[in-house]
Amino acid sequence: MPEALRDLARRVSNWGRWGADDERGTINFITPEVVRRAAACVRRGTVFSLGLPLGAAGPQIGQGGRVNPIHLMSAIDGRLGAAPDAPRYSDDFVTMPLQCATQWDSLAHVYYDGQLYNGFPASTLTAAGAARNAIDRLGPGIVSRGVLLDLARARGVERLAPGQVIGPADLEAAEAAQGVRAGSGDVLLLRTGHLALFTRDGDRVAYMRQMPGLGIAAVPWLHAREVAAVASDTNAVEVIPFEDPAVPLPVHQLCIRDMGLTLGEMFDLDALAADCAADRVWEFLFSAPPLKVTGGVGSPLNPLAVK
Amino acid sequence: MPEALRDLARRVSNWGRWGADDERGTINFITPEVVRRAAACVRRGTVFSLGLPLGAAGPQIGQGGRVNPIHLMSAIDGRLGAAPDAPRYSDDFVTMPLQCATQWDSLAHVYYDGQLYNGFPASTLTAAGAARNAIDRLGPGIVSRGVLLDLARARGVERLAPGQVIGPADLEAAEAAQGVRAGSGDVLLLRTGHLALFTRDGDRVAYMRQMPGLGIAAVPWLHAREVAAVASDTNAVEVIPFEDPAVPLPVHQLCIRDMGLTLGEMFDLDALAADCAADRVWEFLFSAPPLKVTGGVGSPLNPLAVK
Amino acid sequence: MPEALRDLARRVSNWGRWGADDERGTINFITPEVVRRAAACVRRGTVFSLGLPLGAAGPQIGQGGRVNPIHLMSAIDGRLGAAPDAPRYSDDFVTMPLQCATQWDSLAHVYYDGQLYNGFPASTLTAAGAARNAIDRLGPGIVSRGVLLDLARARGVERLAPGQVIGPADLEAAEAAQGVRAGSGDVLLLRTGHLALFTRDGDRVAYMRQMPGLGIAAVPWLHAREVAAVASDTNAVEVIPFEDPAVPLPVHQLCIRDMGLTLGEMFDLDALAADCAADRVWEFLFSAPPLKVTGGVGSPLNPLAVK
Amino acid sequence: MPEALRDLARRVSNWGRWGADDERGTINFITPEVVRRAAACVRRGTVFSLGLPLGAAGPQIGQGGRVNPIHLMSAIDGRLGAAPDAPRYSDDFVTMPLQCATQWDSLAHVYYDGQLYNGFPASTLTAAGAARNAIDRLGPGIVSRGVLLDLARARGVERLAPGQVIGPADLEAAEAAQGVRAGSGDVLLLRTGHLALFTRDGDRVAYMRQMPGLGIAAVPWLHAREVAAVASDTNAVEVIPFEDPAVPLPVHQLCIRDMGLTLGEMFDLDALAADCAADRVWEFLFSAPPLKVTGGVGSPLNPLAVK
Repeated sequence: MPEALRDLARRVSNWGRWGADDERGTINFITPEVVRRAAACVRRGTVFSLGLPLGAAGPQIGQGGRVNPIHLMSAIDGRLGAAPDAPRYSDDFVTMPLQCATQWDSLAHVYYDGQLYNGFPASTLTAAGAARNAIDRLGPGIVSRGVLLDLARARGVERLAPGQVIGPADLEAAEAAQGVRAGSGDVLLLRTGHLALFTRDGDRVAYMRQMPGLGIAAVPWLHAREVAAVASDTNAVEVIPFEDPAVPLPVHQLCIRDMGLTLGEMFDLDALAADCAADRVWEFLFSAPPLKVTGGVGSPLNPLAVK
Repeated sequence: MPEALRDLARRVSNWGRWGADDERGTINFITPEVVRRAAACVRRGTVFSLGLPLGAAGPQIGQGGRVNPIHLMSAIDGRLGAAPDAPRYSDDFVTMPLQCATQWDSLAHVYYDGQLYNGFPASTLTAAGAARNAIDRLGPGIVSRGVLLDLARARGVERLAPGQVIGPADLEAAEAAQGVRAGSGDVLLLRTGHLALFTRDGDRVAYMRQMPGLGIAAVPWLHAREVAAVASDTNAVEVIPFEDPAVPLPVHQLCIRDMGLTLGEMFDLDALAADCAADRVWEFLFSAPPLKVTGGVGSPLNPLAVK
Repeated sequence: MPEALRDLARRVSNWGRWGADDERGTINFITPEVVRRAAACVRRGTVFSLGLPLGAAGPQIGQGGRVNPIHLMSAIDGRLGAAPDAPRYSDDFVTMPLQCATQWDSLAHVYYDGQLYNGFPASTLTAAGAARNAIDRLGPGIVSRGVLLDLARARGVERLAPGQVIGPADLEAAEAAQGVRAGSGDVLLLRTGHLALFTRDGDRVAYMRQMPGLGIAAVPWLHAREVAAVASDTNAVEVIPFEDPAVPLPVHQLCIRDMGLTLGEMFDLDALAADCAADRVWEFLFSAPPLKVTGGVGSPLNPLAVK
Repeated sequence: MPEALRDLARRVSNWGRWGADDERGTINFITPEVVRRAAACVRRGTVFSLGLPLGAAGPQIGQGGRVNPIHLMSAIDGRLGAAPDAPRYSDDFVTMPLQCATQWDSLAHVYYDGQLYNGFPASTLTAAGAARNAIDRLGPGIVSRGVLLDLARARGVERLAPGQVIGPADLEAAEAAQGVRAGSGDVLLLRTGHLALFTRDGDRVAYMRQMPGLGIAAVPWLHAREVAAVASDTNAVEVIPFEDPAVPLPVHQLCIRDMGLTLGEMFDLDALAADCAADRVWEFLFSAPPLKVTGGVGSPLNPLAVK
């Protein structure tokens, strides 16, 4: 890791901030006060689902061994009892990567120098799962105020181009245009428009291989704003190709490992963004509880926004 | 099915109530007005997770082929790039029944006479999943006002006994004792205390084989109250052994197939109930979005209650 | 199904030939005498493995929901006991379609008119698997004399072209060129050379979508010869595109459903064929026992040829 | 590891014997000459399947995370084409531990002191599987002469008791009683009768927790005889409880890691043993090719014995 990045890592580090045993990171910014304010954002009672379907038609193309969910029925028209007219039931299984579609990364997902967020050693990761920073440690969350920044709309384009870097100026321009400001404990949702390559055009490869996203310069901005989590409509939240080809996933490294900030990926923000543009309200109650997979590194999600 | 039950089925039927194509059933009771009232229940900003851990230590004992989740790592200390000091990542898979722990049934789960809720034919259930009434149709839900009735506390016992039937009088006694009333669009959470057999005593077999729960007489009560969903801390919500041994899962049949009312199972209500007993507030914002598994018959959950 | 095909089906039918309960079909041709002759084919003591690797690099491209095997470790460097210097162990899981690489079809795989081989009704196929004609019924087999016919070599080409039909004349020309004759109870292995598109060129799509293979006219020839099974180096054994676009998988239909003849797919015959060409011996002991998956429709394999 | 065991490990070590890169161990004893002699054992042409069924009714009780196979259908009565009378097909998946029933251990399964068989470092074992000594390295095997020793019959009991140690004297007594001798390259099958606890009595726990089996003293005997592999009708081949409670799985350690000798577990030897007792012939052609799972630590099997 280049020295400049190490300097930045030290500046944005939250290690120890919530105690030596903390495994929740910036989720700690979601105080009861924040939750109360989040609930107060519900004005119309309209609910938006931000989750992609989980099935064979998902976005995965095999990268890193990730495949789309395999959904199989274990019972179809199964008889409850022996009578010919007995009631029937169905039942089913799924096999899936925990990060195959709309999902949270846990704080055990990316790290360097042999240490995870808050200094836990990499040896806590074994075939038994993540003994530290696992997704199940985020159980009572994540519910908070959500703030959507529509970077595409702010630039007047349908979607940002793959490789386009989102920096502090872009974020603040969107805030200004929308009349909203991300603050402590908020979940920040970033719409790039990139998802349409998959959902509208059906081009998985174009969607998964390259994407617009956060650049390194956005990291101290996120730190200063004290957001609880950041999610986007891309597979990585951060920009790909990377700003420095020699430094893979720098935003993941700094956010997850140093700040303890969870990333949410492949959120479908299109319907929500259209609604926000219509009523000019870009804040809402946001609820996306991860499945409490013991030792899990991530969790599939169906995040909700309630306006 | 006995004729008396068929009569009851006709009385509580919601087929056609929300249109011939409806696949959401009583979730339709959750109007924007209900959601607004739900949000207004957030007073302290405290969040409770009602989901059991998803892992090998889960409650399943193999009944009906259901096993506990198999969580396996697909990457441990994987290197991002070729450099020896490259950043690392972890990744993982899960294989699980969709109804192995805390979960929603979809409206395709139980049926009789060859028809599912709203008259869809049983032939819509194939190896490809549920073409109708699948869990993904409940995407933008379930968020509503939650009302907890603590049946054990109302009776002054630690837990109801297996086989103990919960009827309208029990439900109303709990309402009266707690000073709360379940109404249209509410999600009703029923605590029996039975879960402690698993979570405290570690006796999976005792927990899964028999249980206290709703009796048939409660069904018209649920219908009259227009609740949107009912969940409990047992594996079946309804009482086992069944009231009539010749009629398996009658409450499932009537609720899911005739009323179109979703059941939630194995909710961990103990911490929430203790809190409600302490502050005497038994209503809260409830959020439990199902995973949008395409054609899924159920969904694992981490339901949240926000007070 | 066209009437001409129905006529052919009746002519090649083996229903009832080995009793009304038979679920093994032409495997019944493998008599003890055939097994003894097979063993007598072992002259040098050289063993050839005809199985493709089972892993993420397999040939599947998602057709019909088939994916490549997902192999995950459940224990890595796991400690046997508490001592720091305790011995260690590893353990693993696989999730895979039973027909994802080198494999046998069971006699429950393809059928028509609501009846499987030997007249068993299609209703014997449920979410619980195949109650009739499942792969586990072939347990004590398949060991017999193997005869390899190298169709590509016989035509003097590297590989047959996709869509090229193999008929009786082709089979007999190869027999004549090689000085061998397939007879009762033999397992017939057909090399087309098509596999190189995958194993050498890495072109999964070209390998899986179209292929040379048996045409309908070969079916009565197989019936007359009384071969016990037929395997090839392609995904379908039969030619694709089909001879009549309106009749999908006719050879599967006639062989599996009417004759009760098992098909083996994606066998890697290249090294064996090179050896046979060198020593001019095209017969050998063949052993390919299917996994006894209860109710299984197919089985992954590592077939062996012993010369 | 106690010093006495380390001494023994050095004495029986085969490291380097077949070259520094060898990953096949004692399978190397199976020379072409051995294979020819094996084929010559086929006299009657009778085939015995030694594999247990693979399904939900298997022997696993969850030890070490091992579960029974989960077999699910991915297609039932699926239509090939659009016509109502189109032919139909079925297809299926399995999720299973590679060592859940009748199976081979690979030489990557058990080790100590950070080194696997032939000195490969433990770091070759990762979430991607076993880079060394994996089961796919045994592809062209295992076919050889099989020799069955029926320890229960030799002692005149129905089954050996759990905890009963099998030593060189027991093996030689059985050889003498049966008139057979295990030699270089043979696969040695040891019948204890213990399997009946599962297959006849249905007592999985009794079958899996404790068992009769090889003691440490048998290891140098196996080494001297140069057998290629050893399999038994128990889950461990070796005796449990262990001879020294402080030394877990000593026979696994010495055989797999030091000798490079594969162990076969949960072989169903009962029908074969009855036949051998009847015709007094205890040798046969043995064929049990492992699935070539890339990086696999074990393989499910359907081993065949041909007499």
